[in-house]
Amino acid sequence: MISREEIKGFLTDYKKIAIATICSHSALQIFFGARQEGFKTLGICKPDARKVYDSFQLAKPDEYLMVEDYSQVLDEKFQEKLREKNAIIVPHGSFVEYVGPKNIEEKFLVPMFGNRRVLEWEGDRHKEKRWLQHANLEIPREFAPDEMDRLCIVKFHGAKGGKNFFLASSKEEFEKKTRDGDKNSAFIQEYVVGLRYYPHYFYSPVLNRVEFLGIDRRDESNIDSLNRLGLTREEIERLGSYVVTGNIPLVVRESLLPQLIEMGQKTVKSSLELFPPGMIGPFCLETICRDDLKFVTFEISARIVAGTNLYPMGSPYSCYLFGEPMSAGRRVSREIQLAKEKNELEKVIY
Amino acid sequence: MISREEIKGFLTDYKKIAIATICSHSALQIFFGARQEGFKTLGICKPDARKVYDSFQLAKPDEYLMVEDYSQVLDEKFQEKLREKNAIIVPHGSFVEYVGPKNIEEKFLVPMFGNRRVLEWEGDRHKEKRWLQHANLEIPREFAPDEMDRLCIVKFHGAKGGKNFFLASSKEEFEKKTRDGDKNSAFIQEYVVGLRYYPHYFYSPVLNRVEFLGIDRRDESNIDSLNRLGLTREEIERLGSYVVTGNIPLVVRESLLPQLIEMGQKTVKSSLELFPPGMIGPFCLETICRDDLKFVTFEISARIVAGTNLYPMGSPYSCYLFGEPMSAGRRVSREIQLAKEKNELEKVIY
Amino acid sequence: MISREEIKGFLTDYKKIAIATICSHSALQIFFGARQEGFKTLGICKPDARKVYDSFQLAKPDEYLMVEDYSQVLDEKFQEKLREKNAIIVPHGSFVEYVGPKNIEEKFLVPMFGNRRVLEWEGDRHKEKRWLQHANLEIPREFAPDEMDRLCIVKFHGAKGGKNFFLASSKEEFEKKTRDGDKNSAFIQEYVVGLRYYPHYFYSPVLNRVEFLGIDRRDESNIDSLNRLGLTREEIERLGSYVVTGNIPLVVRESLLPQLIEMGQKTVKSSLELFPPGMIGPFCLETICRDDLKFVTFEISARIVAGTNLYPMGSPYSCYLFGEPMSAGRRVSREIQLAKEKNELEKVIY
Repeated sequence: MISREEIKGFLTDYKKIAIATICSHSALQIFFGARQEGFKTLGICKPDARKVYDSFQLAKPDEYLMVEDYSQVLDEKFQEKLREKNAIIVPHGSFVEYVGPKNIEEKFLVPMFGNRRVLEWEGDRHKEKRWLQHANLEIPREFAPDEMDRLCIVKFHGAKGGKNFFLASSKEEFEKKTRDGDKNSAFIQEYVVGLRYYPHYFYSPVLNRVEFLGIDRRDESNIDSLNRLGLTREEIERLGSYVVTGNIPLVVRESLLPQLIEMGQKTVKSSLELFPPGMIGPFCLETICRDDLKFVTFEISARIVAGTNLYPMGSPYSCYLFGEPMSAGRRVSREIQLAKEKNELEKVIY
Repeated sequence: MISREEIKGFLTDYKKIAIATICSHSALQIFFGARQEGFKTLGICKPDARKVYDSFQLAKPDEYLMVEDYSQVLDEKFQEKLREKNAIIVPHGSFVEYVGPKNIEEKFLVPMFGNRRVLEWEGDRHKEKRWLQHANLEIPREFAPDEMDRLCIVKFHGAKGGKNFFLASSKEEFEKKTRDGDKNSAFIQEYVVGLRYYPHYFYSPVLNRVEFLGIDRRDESNIDSLNRLGLTREEIERLGSYVVTGNIPLVVRESLLPQLIEMGQKTVKSSLELFPPGMIGPFCLETICRDDLKFVTFEISARIVAGTNLYPMGSPYSCYLFGEPMSAGRRVSREIQLAKEKNELEKVIY
Repeated sequence: MISREEIKGFLTDYKKIAIATICSHSALQIFFGARQEGFKTLGICKPDARKVYDSFQLAKPDEYLMVEDYSQVLDEKFQEKLREKNAIIVPHGSFVEYVGPKNIEEKFLVPMFGNRRVLEWEGDRHKEKRWLQHANLEIPREFAPDEMDRLCIVKFHGAKGGKNFFLASSKEEFEKKTRDGDKNSAFIQEYVVGLRYYPHYFYSPVLNRVEFLGIDRRDESNIDSLNRLGLTREEIERLGSYVVTGNIPLVVRESLLPQLIEMGQKTVKSSLELFPPGMIGPFCLETICRDDLKFVTFEISARIVAGTNLYPMGSPYSCYLFGEPMSAGRRVSREIQLAKEKNELEKVIY
């Protein structure tokens, strides 16, 4: 694991910070917001994506660092170039995916916004569960086949895109639907019935507060289109997939905000206890709101989420916090700016 | 029933108006909007909700009036305090629910925005129906069991949260699904097939006009999630509930606006005839748009609705009315401001 | 076909341009945007729609040209009046539908924004298909009954409102569901399973670029409500209809933007080759995003679409292009303004 001291060392040489990320995921708002806060921007970009960033003149990075493959980000020369350009990386989901969490922890010697240690807590199912439980959030119950007493979702290793799963309500149904060889690798979890909400938070160590920046719902192909076809459960299990292709804006009932805000605060508190300096910057809880008005958290995204792309000019919640258009991307740059002014950059960079 | 004269009496003593409401439902935009219009704000708040309003610095009330239970609002001392602070209450759905419509009519001697008489017309199913019919709006047909000739929704007393109802298409189905003791209390209504739209209106007695401020659709747990499961009608009737947990923004086809705007105008006209000074301020028609492009109105909310929480900075319609960000909450304060300037406060307060 | 020269002739006499359209579809943003760009506005209006435009003071046309029927737009006197008032028509979907594409091509001697020739390429199913194929976009496969090897949608002539169609997966199912007399007129197309996205583009000949202005999803009555009922496919085919009644805002996954932006660019390039001066101004691709993250384009709208009504103050994409609120309606007026300043009006008017 790269040490904080090492990163801090690079940082002390920085003269004029540049905000850098990979041109994908939420890079438009990251660059747009960095400009609004007066930073230079660097876009790490593959040839076919460049036309996107070129076409949005206000979100175009000041400089492109073209690569053929995102693994090049790890090349020593490339890292050196990033440091020479005084880059602070804003890691988004695609950054983590393309570069690899292990590589970022061990080999990527460039200052990043946030706490590098969060990667292992987000990426490992057991650690993530421990984090959420330590925060006292309600999470979906897990079952052994014998115990199944309600609708469950049965997932198998590598159920990416949601193709490798099914629903079952009893041990019998589980047995019937599972091939013998797969039984031991099955992960059985309560299927929580309710609406999905993805609240966006921002923990500011500089201002010492947890901000509620907005909410979205993920739009998943093809499952969210199958309702037009009148399918049976069997057909849905055969055809259905859960690939995120977009995001829809929404708000929650105001009387649910005490619960959601507390969940965000507890998640941060828990992170400070488990892996200080904790969950710095933007994060998102992936929740389901049941009809008894309780939220169940099924996952955490410990970084800026694509759902914030809905709100480059602010959300129906961020306007209550800032007297100007504030996206999550801009909020990251604002935090860096605030930290710099207070000479506390090491509080938010690692 | 508290008289208008009595309320007017309190109002004449007011020096510097404060906008007050219970910290829930749509209070964020009510406080935010009141500030934008230059008013002081008072938040009636229970301990667990305070963190929400504290965390949104621009929507935080200037002063909290903490209570353990919202029924305390009726205490004589509390009412006195509100009047001493020159409070004008903006009643939202939770205010009406927590304090109780009867209590507000008989015991709550504090100036309120709008027409206190609307509470009885909104809260009584028969009066509400008379109001909508007098306005010449199309409403869902009601049926006796013998007459059922289409898909109907059968509700029973106290079907709150939508748990106590089912669908039936014929007398036979109705008989089969109803327990004998319940048959007389069944309320049978046409199930109107189409999309739900919740248009937000504002009637301004000061400007003498009905404004169209926006639209939303309510997000209901768990019914809006069941489509992912491929359930049969029986399973949906067993599992399904209709608890509002959020709101989604949308617009309607522009060629439907003549119809929607007329519906709003007729609703106000009807209210002026049935209970002058009528439907003052914000209200919402709960409608379904059938595939023949006709709207059926199944309910009216005679006050600010939570769907307007989507638009604290204005909606895709309000921007055509105001050259600045105008939420429904701000619109209420704007109306009070306009009335004050014209010395017509009694037109909008009761 | 009216010649470009003829229209250019009228244009040279124009002193002070007025932006005109029929009061429906997207007229609010067209008028609002024209005002923002400093143009006078003319609303061609039927009596029952006038209250809508009267009620939105900032989107109200400066002058109404009242008609009893939109066919009056073709009267020689009316056309003369439009030219006398120096009107440039912004043709939206209702304009094209009410006046008639053939009439616009042959009889409507008034300058219009965009390329009049696009009407025949949009309106004729075969030409539209040729356009999309020439642009190298993936479109739904067509089948003869014998070849059906997947879920297909079978449409019959005049399937407007989506009532006259059904789904079938095999020749046998097709035969069973089709009346003998109808078999030859059946149009069988692959039913693409995935989420519908409607990206909004703007091709600017003056700036020589294709802009990505936003996305929506159409809200269709009653199909999008049937999921609450637990219907079978047979019931959905019997009851279901696809009448557009509104629009929902959304964003797509940022990694899909290279694909979408390229699709827009290829559509314009193809139009320039097939019918120069090509697809000028706003257009929309009607697409489905499958779970393999590929977009299939099932239709093109070669003009401003109603989905842009969501964004009168700009979208989550337009903010990256313009440092001010930019709707599609305003964008049209901006293009006319830019063209005028450069003395290139004939580039964007025909």
